Amino acid sequence: MSMRNIKLTLAYDGSHFHGWQVQPDKRTIQQQLETAIGKITGSPARVAGAGRTDTGVHALGQVASFKTASRIPVERFRPALQSQLPADISIRRAEEVPLEFHAGYAARWKQYRYVILNSEIAQPHLRNQVTRIVNPLDWRAMDESARLLVGTHDFRSFESQFPNKASSVRTVHWCRVHPSDTWGIWQPGVSWAKSAPERPPFLFLDIVADGFLYNMVRAIMGTLLKIGVGSWPRSAAREVLEAMDRRVAGPTAPPEGLYLMHVEYDHPFTGLDVPAAE
Amino acid sequence: MSMRNIKLTLAYDGSHFHGWQVQPDKRTIQQQLETAIGKITGSPARVAGAGRTDTGVHALGQVASFKTASRIPVERFRPALQSQLPADISIRRAEEVPLEFHAGYAARWKQYRYVILNSEIAQPHLRNQVTRIVNPLDWRAMDESARLLVGTHDFRSFESQFPNKASSVRTVHWCRVHPSDTWGIWQPGVSWAKSAPERPPFLFLDIVADGFLYNMVRAIMGTLLKIGVGSWPRSAAREVLEAMDRRVAGPTAPPEGLYLMHVEYDHPFTGLDVPAAE
Repeated sequence: MSMRNIKLTLAYDGSHFHGWQVQPDKRTIQQQLETAIGKITGSPARVAGAGRTDTGVHALGQVASFKTASRIPVERFRPALQSQLPADISIRRAEEVPLEFHAGYAARWKQYRYVILNSEIAQPHLRNQVTRIVNPLDWRAMDESARLLVGTHDFRSFESQFPNKASSVRTVHWCRVHPSDTWGIWQPGVSWAKSAPERPPFLFLDIVADGFLYNMVRAIMGTLLKIGVGSWPRSAAREVLEAMDRRVAGPTAPPEGLYLMHVEYDHPFTGLDVPAAE
Repeated sequence: MSMRNIKLTLAYDGSHFHGWQVQPDKRTIQQQLETAIGKITGSPARVAGAGRTDTGVHALGQVASFKTASRIPVERFRPALQSQLPADISIRRAEEVPLEFHAGYAARWKQYRYVILNSEIAQPHLRNQVTRIVNPLDWRAMDESARLLVGTHDFRSFESQFPNKASSVRTVHWCRVHPSDTWGIWQPGVSWAKSAPERPPFLFLDIVADGFLYNMVRAIMGTLLKIGVGSWPRSAAREVLEAMDRRVAGPTAPPEGLYLMHVEYDHPFTGLDVPAAE
Protein backbone atom coordinates (compact mmCIF):
# COMPACT_ATOMS: atom_id res chain seq x y z
CA MET A 1 0.00 0.00 0.00
CA SER A 2 1.98 2.94 -1.25
CA MET A 3 1.22 6.39 0.10
CA ARG A 4 0.52 9.43 -2.06
CA ASN A 5 0.71 13.11 -1.19
CA ILE A 6 -2.06 15.44 -2.41
CA LYS A 7 -1.78 19.23 -2.58
CA LEU A 8 -5.03 21.23 -2.54
CA THR A 9 -5.51 24.89 -3.44
CA LEU A 10 -8.58 26.28 -1.67
CA ALA A 11 -10.86 29.29 -1.55
CA TYR A 12 -13.20 29.85 1.35
CA ASP A 13 -15.54 32.38 2.83
CA GLY A 14 -14.35 32.52 6.44
CA SER A 15 -17.51 34.23 7.74
CA HIS A 16 -19.12 31.13 9.19
CA PHE A 17 -16.00 29.26 10.28
CA HIS A 18 -14.10 29.34 13.55
CA GLY A 19 -10.95 29.69 11.51
CA TRP A 20 -8.75 27.06 9.90
CA GLN A 21 -7.68 24.84 12.75
CA VAL A 22 -9.61 21.88 14.20
CA GLN A 23 -11.18 22.68 17.57
CA PRO A 24 -13.64 20.50 19.53
CA ASP A 25 -17.28 21.14 18.54
CA LYS A 26 -16.39 24.04 16.24
CA ARG A 27 -16.97 24.35 12.51
CA THR A 28 -13.50 24.86 11.04
CA ILE A 29 -12.07 24.55 7.54
CA GLN A 30 -9.54 21.89 8.53
CA GLN A 31 -12.27 19.80 10.15
CA GLN A 32 -14.52 20.06 7.09
CA LEU A 33 -11.67 19.00 4.81
CA GLU A 34 -10.65 16.07 7.01
CA THR A 35 -14.25 14.84 7.15
CA ALA A 36 -14.61 15.12 3.37
CA ILE A 37 -11.32 13.29 2.73
CA GLY A 38 -12.36 10.54 5.15
CA LYS A 39 -15.60 10.09 3.24
CA ILE A 40 -14.04 9.80 -0.21
CA THR A 41 -10.96 7.76 0.74
CA GLY A 42 -12.52 5.65 3.47
CA SER A 43 -9.82 6.42 6.01
CA PRO A 44 -9.11 9.40 8.25
CA ALA A 45 -6.50 11.93 7.15
CA ARG A 46 -4.69 14.77 8.84
CA VAL A 47 -4.57 17.88 6.68
CA ALA A 48 -1.70 20.37 6.94
CA GLY A 49 -2.40 23.97 5.99
CA ALA A 50 -0.07 26.72 4.81
CA GLY A 51 -1.59 29.36 7.09
CA ARG A 52 -3.87 29.14 10.12
CA THR A 53 -6.45 31.73 9.22
CA ASP A 54 -8.52 33.05 12.12
CA THR A 55 -12.30 33.26 12.54
CA GLY A 56 -13.77 35.42 9.78
CA VAL A 57 -10.58 35.53 7.68
CA HIS A 58 -10.96 34.43 4.05
CA ALA A 59 -8.79 32.63 1.54
CA LEU A 60 -8.58 32.54 -2.21
CA GLY A 61 -5.30 30.64 -2.39
CA GLN A 62 -4.89 28.65 0.82
CA VAL A 63 -2.82 25.50 0.30
CA ALA A 64 -3.28 22.23 2.16
CA SER A 65 -1.71 18.80 1.84
CA PHE A 66 -2.50 15.30 3.08
CA LYS A 67 -1.19 11.78 2.61
CA THR A 68 -3.44 8.97 1.50
CA ALA A 69 -3.28 5.36 0.31
CA SER A 70 -6.36 5.94 -1.84
CA ARG A 71 -6.14 4.93 -5.52
CA ILE A 72 -8.53 7.67 -6.68
CA PRO A 73 -7.14 9.13 -9.96
CA VAL A 74 -5.70 12.58 -9.25
CA GLU A 75 -8.12 14.36 -11.59
CA ARG A 76 -11.04 12.92 -9.61
CA PHE A 77 -9.94 14.33 -6.26
CA ARG A 78 -11.20 17.87 -6.91
CA PRO A 79 -14.79 17.03 -7.93
CA ALA A 80 -15.06 14.16 -5.42
CA LEU A 81 -13.92 16.31 -2.51
CA GLN A 82 -16.04 19.25 -3.64
CA SER A 83 -19.14 17.04 -3.63
CA GLN A 84 -18.57 16.43 0.11
CA LEU A 85 -17.87 20.05 1.05
CA PRO A 86 -20.21 22.94 1.95
CA ALA A 87 -20.64 25.84 -0.48
CA ASP A 88 -18.40 28.15 1.55
CA ILE A 89 -15.31 26.04 0.73
CA SER A 90 -14.17 25.58 -2.85
CA ILE A 91 -11.38 23.31 -4.06
CA ARG A 92 -9.68 25.20 -6.85
CA ARG A 93 -7.08 22.55 -7.65
CA ALA A 94 -5.86 19.13 -6.54
CA GLU A 95 -2.41 17.83 -7.55
CA GLU A 96 -0.24 14.87 -6.67
CA VAL A 97 3.10 16.05 -5.27
CA PRO A 98 6.27 14.34 -4.01
CA LEU A 99 5.93 12.72 -0.58
CA GLU A 100 8.28 15.23 1.04
CA PHE A 101 5.98 18.20 0.23
CA HIS A 102 4.29 19.71 3.29
CA ALA A 103 1.98 22.71 2.91
CA GLY A 104 3.00 24.10 6.27
CA TYR A 105 6.78 24.01 5.99
CA ALA A 106 7.84 24.48 2.39
CA ALA A 107 6.36 27.90 1.51
CA ARG A 108 8.82 30.40 0.00
CA TRP A 109 6.41 33.31 0.27
CA LYS A 110 2.75 34.14 0.89
CA GLN A 111 0.54 37.00 -0.23
CA TYR A 112 -2.20 38.45 1.95
CA ARG A 113 -4.63 41.14 0.85
CA TYR A 114 -6.66 43.40 3.13
CA VAL A 115 -9.72 45.02 1.52
CA ILE A 116 -11.20 48.30 2.77
CA LEU A 117 -14.50 49.76 1.59
CA ASN A 118 -14.02 53.48 2.19
CA SER A 119 -17.59 54.73 2.11
CA GLU A 120 -20.28 56.24 4.23
CA ILE A 121 -22.74 53.87 2.56
CA ALA A 122 -22.62 50.17 3.37
CA GLN A 123 -22.51 47.53 0.65
CA PRO A 124 -24.83 44.78 1.92
CA HIS A 125 -23.42 42.10 -0.39
CA LEU A 126 -19.94 42.65 1.04
CA ARG A 127 -20.86 43.01 4.70
CA ASN A 128 -18.67 40.03 5.73
CA GLN A 129 -16.09 40.50 3.00
CA VAL A 130 -14.61 43.95 3.44
CA THR A 131 -13.83 46.23 6.35
CA ARG A 132 -15.79 49.43 5.94
CA ILE A 133 -14.21 52.71 7.01
CA VAL A 134 -16.50 55.74 6.95
CA ASN A 135 -13.89 58.51 7.29
CA PRO A 136 -12.04 59.46 4.10
CA LEU A 137 -8.67 57.73 3.89
CA ASP A 138 -5.54 59.22 2.35
CA TRP A 139 -4.43 56.14 0.42
CA ARG A 140 -1.25 57.80 -0.86
CA ALA A 141 -0.09 58.41 2.72
CA MET A 142 -0.98 54.81 3.60
CA ASP A 143 0.94 53.52 0.59
CA GLU A 144 4.00 55.60 1.42
CA SER A 145 3.93 54.31 5.00
CA ALA A 146 3.36 50.71 3.93
CA ARG A 147 6.48 50.75 1.77
CA LEU A 148 8.58 51.61 4.84
CA LEU A 149 7.96 48.08 6.12
CA VAL A 150 9.62 46.33 3.19
CA GLY A 151 12.81 44.49 4.17
CA THR A 152 14.06 42.10 6.81
CA HIS A 153 13.01 43.36 10.22
CA ASP A 154 11.93 42.25 13.66
CA PHE A 155 8.14 42.64 13.35
CA ARG A 156 7.29 42.00 17.00
CA SER A 157 5.48 45.36 17.18
CA PHE A 158 2.91 43.82 14.84
CA GLU A 159 2.56 40.45 16.59
CA SER A 160 -0.31 39.59 18.93
CA GLN A 161 0.65 37.44 21.90
CA PHE A 162 4.40 37.94 21.42
CA PRO A 163 6.45 35.76 21.68
CA ASN A 164 4.39 33.42 19.58
CA LYS A 165 7.01 31.93 17.31
CA ALA A 166 10.72 31.17 17.66
CA SER A 167 11.69 34.40 15.92
CA SER A 168 9.79 37.54 15.07
CA VAL A 169 12.17 38.44 12.23
CA ARG A 170 10.51 38.25 8.84
CA THR A 171 11.32 39.46 5.35
CA VAL A 172 8.60 41.56 3.74
CA HIS A 173 9.05 41.58 -0.05
CA TRP A 174 6.11 43.80 -0.94
CA CYS A 175 3.84 46.11 1.05
CA ARG A 176 1.66 48.52 -0.90
CA VAL A 177 -1.73 50.19 -0.63
CA HIS A 178 -3.58 50.81 -3.88
CA PRO A 179 -7.04 51.98 -4.87
CA SER A 180 -9.61 49.90 -6.74
CA ASP A 181 -12.91 50.63 -8.42
CA THR A 182 -14.23 47.18 -7.61
CA TRP A 183 -14.10 44.31 -5.19
CA GLY A 184 -12.26 42.27 -7.82
CA ILE A 185 -10.19 40.48 -5.29
CA TRP A 186 -9.42 37.18 -6.95
CA GLN A 187 -6.73 38.45 -9.27
CA PRO A 188 -3.52 38.32 -7.26
CA GLY A 189 -2.03 41.11 -9.37
CA VAL A 190 -2.49 44.77 -8.57
CA SER A 191 -5.23 46.81 -10.23
CA TRP A 192 -5.47 50.54 -9.89
CA ALA A 193 -8.74 52.43 -9.90
CA LYS A 194 -9.61 53.86 -13.27
CA SER A 195 -11.55 56.74 -11.80
CA ALA A 196 -11.63 59.02 -8.76
CA PRO A 197 -8.15 58.19 -7.46
CA GLU A 198 -8.49 60.72 -4.65
CA ARG A 199 -11.48 58.93 -3.17
CA PRO A 200 -11.63 55.39 -4.59
CA PRO A 201 -14.35 53.13 -3.16
CA PHE A 202 -11.93 50.31 -2.32
CA LEU A 203 -8.39 50.18 -0.97
CA PHE A 204 -6.29 47.03 -1.08
CA LEU A 205 -3.26 46.42 1.11
CA ASP A 206 -1.11 43.78 -0.60
CA ILE A 207 1.65 42.29 1.48
CA VAL A 208 4.07 39.54 0.54
CA ALA A 209 6.51 38.02 3.03
CA ASP A 210 8.45 34.83 3.70
CA GLY A 211 6.21 34.32 6.72
CA PHE A 212 3.74 36.16 8.93
CA LEU A 213 3.44 36.55 12.70
CA TYR A 214 0.14 36.12 14.54
CA ASN A 215 -2.26 38.92 13.44
CA MET A 216 0.62 40.72 11.68
CA VAL A 217 -1.34 41.91 8.63
CA ARG A 218 -4.24 43.08 10.79
CA ALA A 219 -1.89 45.03 13.11
CA ILE A 220 -0.19 46.61 10.11
CA MET A 221 -3.60 47.54 8.69
CA GLY A 222 -4.67 49.01 12.05
CA THR A 223 -1.53 51.14 12.00
CA LEU A 224 -2.01 52.24 8.38
CA LEU A 225 -5.61 53.24 9.15
CA LYS A 226 -4.32 55.62 11.84
CA ILE A 227 -2.16 57.16 9.13
CA GLY A 228 -4.94 57.12 6.53
CA VAL A 229 -7.34 59.16 8.67
CA GLY A 230 -4.54 61.61 9.51
CA SER A 231 -4.18 60.78 13.21
CA TRP A 232 -0.59 59.64 12.78
CA PRO A 233 2.17 60.92 10.45
CA ARG A 234 3.43 58.91 7.49
CA SER A 235 6.56 57.99 9.40
CA ALA A 236 4.51 56.18 12.07
CA ALA A 237 4.72 52.77 10.42
CA ARG A 238 8.49 52.87 10.62
CA GLU A 239 8.45 54.23 14.18
CA VAL A 240 6.14 51.45 15.31
CA LEU A 241 8.44 48.89 13.69
CA GLU A 242 11.47 50.31 15.44
CA ALA A 243 9.75 50.53 18.84
CA MET A 244 9.53 46.70 18.98
CA ASP A 245 6.50 47.00 21.24
CA ARG A 246 2.99 45.85 20.24
CA ARG A 247 1.40 48.57 22.40
CA VAL A 248 2.58 51.36 20.12
CA ALA A 249 1.02 49.88 16.96
CA GLY A 250 -2.54 50.57 15.88
CA PRO A 251 -5.36 48.23 16.90
CA THR A 252 -5.81 44.85 15.23
CA ALA A 253 -8.06 45.51 12.22
CA PRO A 254 -11.16 43.28 11.93
CA PRO A 255 -10.89 39.87 10.23
CA GLU A 256 -13.52 40.31 7.51
CA GLY A 257 -11.27 42.35 5.20
CA LEU A 258 -8.42 39.82 5.19
CA TYR A 259 -7.69 37.26 2.46
CA LEU A 260 -4.90 34.72 2.11
CA MET A 261 -4.29 35.18 -1.62
CA HIS A 262 -1.42 32.94 -2.58
CA VAL A 263 1.18 30.57 -1.17
CA GLU A 264 4.24 29.97 -3.32
CA TYR A 265 6.48 26.94 -2.99
CA ASP A 266 8.38 26.85 -6.27
CA HIS A 267 9.35 30.31 -7.43
CA PRO A 268 11.10 33.21 -5.71
CA PHE A 269 9.09 36.43 -5.39
CA THR A 270 9.65 38.71 -8.37
CA GLY A 271 6.89 41.28 -7.80
CA LEU A 272 3.17 41.77 -8.24
CA ASP A 273 2.01 43.22 -11.53
CA VAL A 274 1.64 46.98 -11.38
CA PRO A 275 0.37 48.93 -14.39
CA ALA A 276 2.77 51.48 -15.84
CA ALA A 277 0.61 54.51 -15.05
CA GLU A 278 -0.70 55.31 -11.59
CA MET B 1 -49.75 68.36 10.56
CA SER B 2 -48.46 68.53 7.03
CA MET B 3 -47.39 65.34 5.28
CA ARG B 4 -44.07 64.85 3.57
CA ASN B 5 -43.04 62.32 0.94
CA ILE B 6 -39.66 60.56 1.27
CA LYS B 7 -37.91 58.72 -1.54
CA LEU B 8 -35.35 56.06 -0.58
CA THR B 9 -32.73 54.42 -2.79
CA LEU B 10 -31.80 51.01 -1.44
CA ALA B 11 -29.32 48.19 -1.85
CA TYR B 12 -29.97 44.78 -0.37
CA ASP B 13 -28.67 41.27 -0.36
CA GLY B 14 -31.80 39.27 -1.10
CA SER B 15 -30.35 35.94 0.07
CA HIS B 16 -32.04 35.89 3.44
CA PHE B 17 -35.31 37.65 2.54
CA HIS B 18 -38.59 36.24 1.30
CA GLY B 19 -38.55 38.94 -1.34
CA TRP B 20 -39.73 42.52 -1.20
CA GLN B 21 -43.39 42.29 -0.29
CA VAL B 22 -44.85 42.01 3.23
CA GLN B 23 -46.13 38.52 4.00
CA PRO B 24 -47.32 37.21 7.38
CA ASP B 25 -44.46 35.83 9.51
CA LYS B 26 -41.87 36.23 6.76
CA ARG B 27 -38.74 38.35 6.75
CA THR B 28 -39.19 40.72 3.81
CA ILE B 29 -37.52 43.96 2.79
CA GLN B 30 -40.77 45.96 2.85
CA GLN B 31 -41.55 44.68 6.37
CA GLN B 32 -38.05 45.60 7.63
CA LEU B 33 -38.38 49.10 6.17
CA GLU B 34 -41.85 49.68 7.58
CA THR B 35 -40.71 48.56 11.02
CA ALA B 36 -37.66 50.84 10.90
CA ILE B 37 -39.72 53.83 9.74
CA GLY B 38 -42.24 53.18 12.51
CA LYS B 39 -39.43 53.24 15.07
CA ILE B 40 -37.87 56.51 13.96
CA THR B 41 -41.07 58.44 13.16
CA GLY B 42 -43.26 56.98 15.90
CA SER B 43 -46.10 56.05 13.58
CA PRO B 44 -46.68 53.23 11.11
CA ALA B 45 -46.01 53.83 7.44
CA ARG B 46 -46.81 51.96 4.28
CA VAL B 47 -43.83 51.78 1.92
CA ALA B 48 -44.30 51.58 -1.85
CA GLY B 49 -41.54 49.92 -3.89
CA ALA B 50 -40.57 50.31 -7.53
CA GLY B 51 -40.21 46.59 -8.12
CA ARG B 52 -41.36 43.55 -6.15
CA THR B 53 -38.19 41.52 -6.12
CA ASP B 54 -38.61 37.80 -5.37
CA THR B 55 -36.91 35.63 -2.77
CA GLY B 56 -33.15 35.65 -3.34
CA VAL B 57 -33.19 38.54 -5.83
CA HIS B 58 -30.90 41.46 -5.01
CA ALA B 59 -31.01 45.20 -5.47
CA LEU B 60 -28.45 47.93 -5.76
CA GLY B 61 -30.87 50.64 -6.83
CA GLN B 62 -34.34 49.72 -5.59
CA VAL B 63 -36.50 52.79 -4.95
CA ALA B 64 -39.15 53.10 -2.26
CA SER B 65 -41.32 55.93 -1.04
CA PHE B 66 -43.47 56.65 1.99
CA LYS B 67 -45.46 59.51 3.44
CA THR B 68 -44.83 60.78 6.96
CA ALA B 69 -45.77 63.66 9.25
CA SER B 70 -42.37 63.38 10.95
CA ARG B 71 -40.31 66.59 11.29
CA ILE B 72 -36.97 64.74 11.07
CA PRO B 73 -34.62 66.83 8.86
CA VAL B 74 -34.22 65.12 5.50
CA GLU B 75 -30.47 64.63 5.89
CA ARG B 76 -31.09 62.67 9.11
CA PHE B 77 -33.42 60.11 7.52
CA ARG B 78 -30.65 58.01 5.95
CA PRO B 79 -28.50 57.49 9.08
CA ALA B 80 -31.53 57.21 11.39
CA LEU B 81 -33.20 54.55 9.24
CA GLN B 82 -29.92 52.71 8.69
CA SER B 83 -29.40 52.46 12.44
CA GLN B 84 -32.69 50.50 12.66
CA LEU B 85 -32.02 48.18 9.72
CA PRO B 86 -30.13 44.88 9.48
CA ALA B 87 -26.78 44.74 7.66
CA ASP B 88 -28.28 43.13 4.56
CA ILE B 89 -30.25 46.30 3.73
CA SER B 90 -28.45 49.57 3.03
CA ILE B 91 -30.06 52.96 2.50
CA ARG B 92 -28.00 54.65 -0.18
CA ARG B 93 -29.98 57.87 -0.28
CA ALA B 94 -33.03 59.58 1.25
CA GLU B 95 -34.63 62.61 -0.40
CA GLU B 96 -37.76 64.65 0.11
CA VAL B 97 -39.91 64.62 -3.02
CA PRO B 98 -43.24 66.19 -4.06
CA LEU B 99 -46.29 64.56 -2.51
CA GLU B 100 -47.48 63.18 -5.84
CA PHE B 101 -44.34 61.03 -6.28
CA HIS B 102 -45.01 57.29 -5.93
CA ALA B 103 -42.13 54.81 -6.35
CA GLY B 104 -44.42 52.20 -7.84
CA TYR B 105 -46.16 54.23 -10.52
CA ALA B 106 -43.90 56.93 -11.81
CA ALA B 107 -40.89 54.98 -13.14
CA ARG B 108 -39.84 55.79 -16.72
CA TRP B 109 -37.46 52.88 -16.98
CA LYS B 110 -35.66 50.28 -14.89
CA GLN B 111 -32.39 48.44 -15.32
CA TYR B 112 -31.90 44.84 -14.22
CA ARG B 113 -28.61 42.96 -14.38
CA TYR B 114 -28.17 39.19 -14.34
CA VAL B 115 -24.70 37.96 -13.34
CA ILE B 116 -23.31 34.59 -14.45
CA LEU B 117 -20.10 33.05 -13.14
CA ASN B 118 -19.04 30.81 -16.03
CA SER B 119 -16.58 28.50 -14.31
CA GLU B 120 -16.04 24.93 -13.30
CA ILE B 121 -14.70 26.22 -9.97
CA ALA B 122 -17.09 27.76 -7.47
CA GLN B 123 -16.41 31.15 -5.88
CA PRO B 124 -17.46 30.68 -2.23
CA HIS B 125 -17.77 34.42 -1.53
CA LEU B 126 -20.29 34.77 -4.34
CA ARG B 127 -22.32 31.62 -3.72
CA ASN B 128 -25.57 33.57 -3.20
CA GLN B 129 -24.67 36.42 -5.53
CA VAL B 130 -24.11 34.92 -8.96
CA THR B 131 -25.55 32.02 -10.92
CA ARG B 132 -22.75 29.63 -11.75
CA ILE B 133 -22.78 27.82 -15.09
CA VAL B 134 -20.15 25.11 -15.53
CA ASN B 135 -20.42 24.59 -19.30
CA PRO B 136 -18.60 27.13 -21.46
CA LEU B 137 -20.96 29.83 -22.72
CA ASP B 138 -20.71 31.55 -26.08
CA TRP B 139 -21.35 35.09 -24.88
CA ARG B 140 -21.23 36.56 -28.39
CA ALA B 141 -24.11 34.31 -29.43
CA MET B 142 -26.00 35.27 -26.29
CA ASP B 143 -25.40 38.96 -26.95
CA GLU B 144 -26.54 38.70 -30.56
CA SER B 145 -29.71 36.91 -29.41
CA ALA B 146 -30.36 39.34 -26.59
CA ARG B 147 -30.35 42.28 -28.97
CA LEU B 148 -33.22 40.69 -30.91
CA LEU B 149 -35.51 41.46 -27.97
CA VAL B 150 -35.04 45.23 -28.12
CA GLY B 151 -38.20 47.09 -29.10
CA THR B 152 -41.89 47.17 -28.21
CA HIS B 153 -43.23 43.62 -28.15
CA ASP B 154 -45.70 41.36 -26.42
CA PHE B 155 -43.39 39.58 -23.97
CA ARG B 156 -45.93 37.01 -22.70
CA SER B 157 -43.54 34.18 -23.70
CA PHE B 158 -41.29 35.42 -20.91
CA GLU B 159 -43.96 35.92 -18.24
CA SER B 160 -44.60 33.41 -15.43
CA GLN B 161 -48.28 33.00 -14.48
CA PHE B 162 -49.56 34.83 -17.56
CA PRO B 163 -51.83 36.82 -17.56
CA ASN B 164 -50.39 38.58 -14.57
CA LYS B 165 -50.75 42.20 -15.56
CA ALA B 166 -53.22 44.12 -17.69
CA SER B 167 -50.93 44.03 -20.70
CA SER B 168 -47.88 41.97 -21.55
CA VAL B 169 -46.59 44.55 -24.04
CA ARG B 170 -43.38 46.21 -22.90
CA THR B 171 -40.68 48.34 -24.51
CA VAL B 172 -37.17 46.99 -24.06
CA HIS B 173 -34.65 49.81 -24.60
CA TRP B 174 -31.47 47.81 -24.07
CA CYS B 175 -30.68 44.10 -23.91
CA ARG B 176 -27.01 43.08 -24.10
CA VAL B 177 -24.72 40.37 -22.77
CA HIS B 178 -21.16 41.40 -22.05
CA PRO B 179 -18.13 39.81 -20.39
CA SER B 180 -16.47 41.01 -17.22
CA ASP B 181 -13.24 40.20 -15.43
CA THR B 182 -14.77 40.91 -12.07
CA TRP B 183 -17.96 40.90 -10.04
CA GLY B 184 -17.94 44.70 -10.12
CA ILE B 185 -21.67 44.93 -10.24
CA TRP B 186 -22.39 48.24 -8.60
CA GLN B 187 -21.50 50.42 -11.55
CA PRO B 188 -24.65 50.63 -13.66
CA GLY B 189 -22.54 51.22 -16.78
CA VAL B 190 -21.15 48.45 -18.92
CA SER B 191 -17.62 47.16 -18.42
CA TRP B 192 -15.94 44.79 -20.81
CA ALA B 193 -13.42 42.19 -19.77
CA LYS B 194 -9.86 43.33 -20.29
CA SER B 195 -8.59 39.80 -20.79
CA ALA B 196 -9.69 36.42 -22.14
CA PRO B 197 -12.77 37.63 -24.01
CA GLU B 198 -13.43 34.14 -25.37
CA ARG B 199 -13.84 32.71 -21.90
CA PRO B 200 -14.41 35.55 -19.43
CA PRO B 201 -15.14 34.53 -15.83
CA PHE B 202 -18.30 36.65 -15.58
CA LEU B 203 -21.12 37.45 -17.97
CA PHE B 204 -23.59 40.26 -17.34
CA LEU B 205 -27.00 40.52 -18.99
CA ASP B 206 -28.08 44.17 -18.82
CA ILE B 207 -31.69 44.86 -19.67
CA VAL B 208 -33.53 48.17 -19.58
CA ALA B 209 -37.28 48.45 -20.15
CA ASP B 210 -40.24 50.65 -19.33
CA GLY B 211 -41.52 47.79 -17.18
CA PHE B 212 -41.02 44.09 -16.55
CA LEU B 213 -43.41 41.16 -16.40
CA TYR B 214 -43.29 38.58 -13.62
CA ASN B 215 -39.98 36.64 -13.88
CA MET B 216 -39.30 38.23 -17.27
CA VAL B 217 -35.54 38.73 -16.85
CA ARG B 218 -35.08 35.24 -15.45
CA ALA B 219 -37.04 33.69 -18.34
CA ILE B 220 -34.98 35.68 -20.85
CA MET B 221 -31.79 34.52 -19.11
CA GLY B 222 -32.99 30.92 -19.16
CA THR B 223 -33.53 31.25 -22.90
CA LEU B 224 -30.15 32.91 -23.50
CA LEU B 225 -28.43 30.12 -21.54
CA LYS B 226 -29.89 27.57 -23.97
CA ILE B 227 -28.30 29.62 -26.75
CA GLY B 228 -25.05 30.10 -24.84
CA VAL B 229 -24.41 26.37 -24.40
CA GLY B 230 -25.27 25.77 -28.06
CA SER B 231 -28.52 23.85 -27.55
CA TRP B 232 -30.57 26.47 -29.40
CA PRO B 233 -29.65 28.68 -32.40
CA ARG B 234 -29.10 32.43 -32.07
CA SER B 235 -32.50 33.07 -33.61
CA ALA B 236 -34.24 31.27 -30.73
CA ALA B 237 -34.77 34.39 -28.60
CA ARG B 238 -36.79 35.97 -31.40
CA GLU B 239 -38.67 32.76 -32.12
CA VAL B 240 -39.65 32.42 -28.47
CA LEU B 241 -40.84 36.02 -28.47
CA GLU B 242 -42.96 35.47 -31.55
CA ALA B 243 -44.46 32.21 -30.27
CA MET B 244 -46.24 34.13 -27.45
CA ASP B 245 -46.21 30.98 -25.35
CA ARG B 246 -44.27 30.63 -22.08
CA ARG B 247 -43.75 26.92 -22.69
CA VAL B 248 -41.37 27.50 -25.59
CA ALA B 249 -39.01 29.75 -23.61
CA GLY B 250 -36.11 28.41 -21.56
CA PRO B 251 -36.53 27.68 -17.85
CA THR B 252 -36.68 30.48 -15.29
CA ALA B 253 -33.05 31.11 -14.28
CA PRO B 254 -32.33 31.09 -10.52
CA PRO B 255 -32.83 34.26 -8.46
CA GLU B 256 -29.34 34.64 -7.01
CA GLY B 257 -27.83 36.16 -10.16
CA LEU B 258 -30.46 38.91 -10.49
CA TYR B 259 -30.06 42.55 -9.41
CA LEU B 260 -32.41 45.50 -9.69
CA MET B 261 -29.80 48.10 -10.65
CA HIS B 262 -31.61 51.36 -11.23
CA VAL B 263 -35.07 52.92 -11.39
CA GLU B 264 -35.33 56.16 -13.32
CA TYR B 265 -38.14 58.68 -12.83
CA ASP B 266 -36.76 61.87 -14.30
CA HIS B 267 -34.76 61.23 -17.45
CA PRO B 268 -35.53 59.27 -20.62
CA PHE B 269 -33.23 56.34 -21.37
CA THR B 270 -30.28 57.39 -23.51
CA GLY B 271 -28.09 54.29 -23.25
CA LEU B 272 -25.65 52.57 -20.93
CA ASP B 273 -22.00 53.50 -21.25
CA VAL B 274 -20.16 51.14 -23.55
CA PRO B 275 -16.42 51.53 -24.12
CA ALA B 276 -15.38 52.24 -27.69
CA ALA B 277 -13.38 49.05 -28.13
CA GLU B 278 -14.73 45.58 -27.44
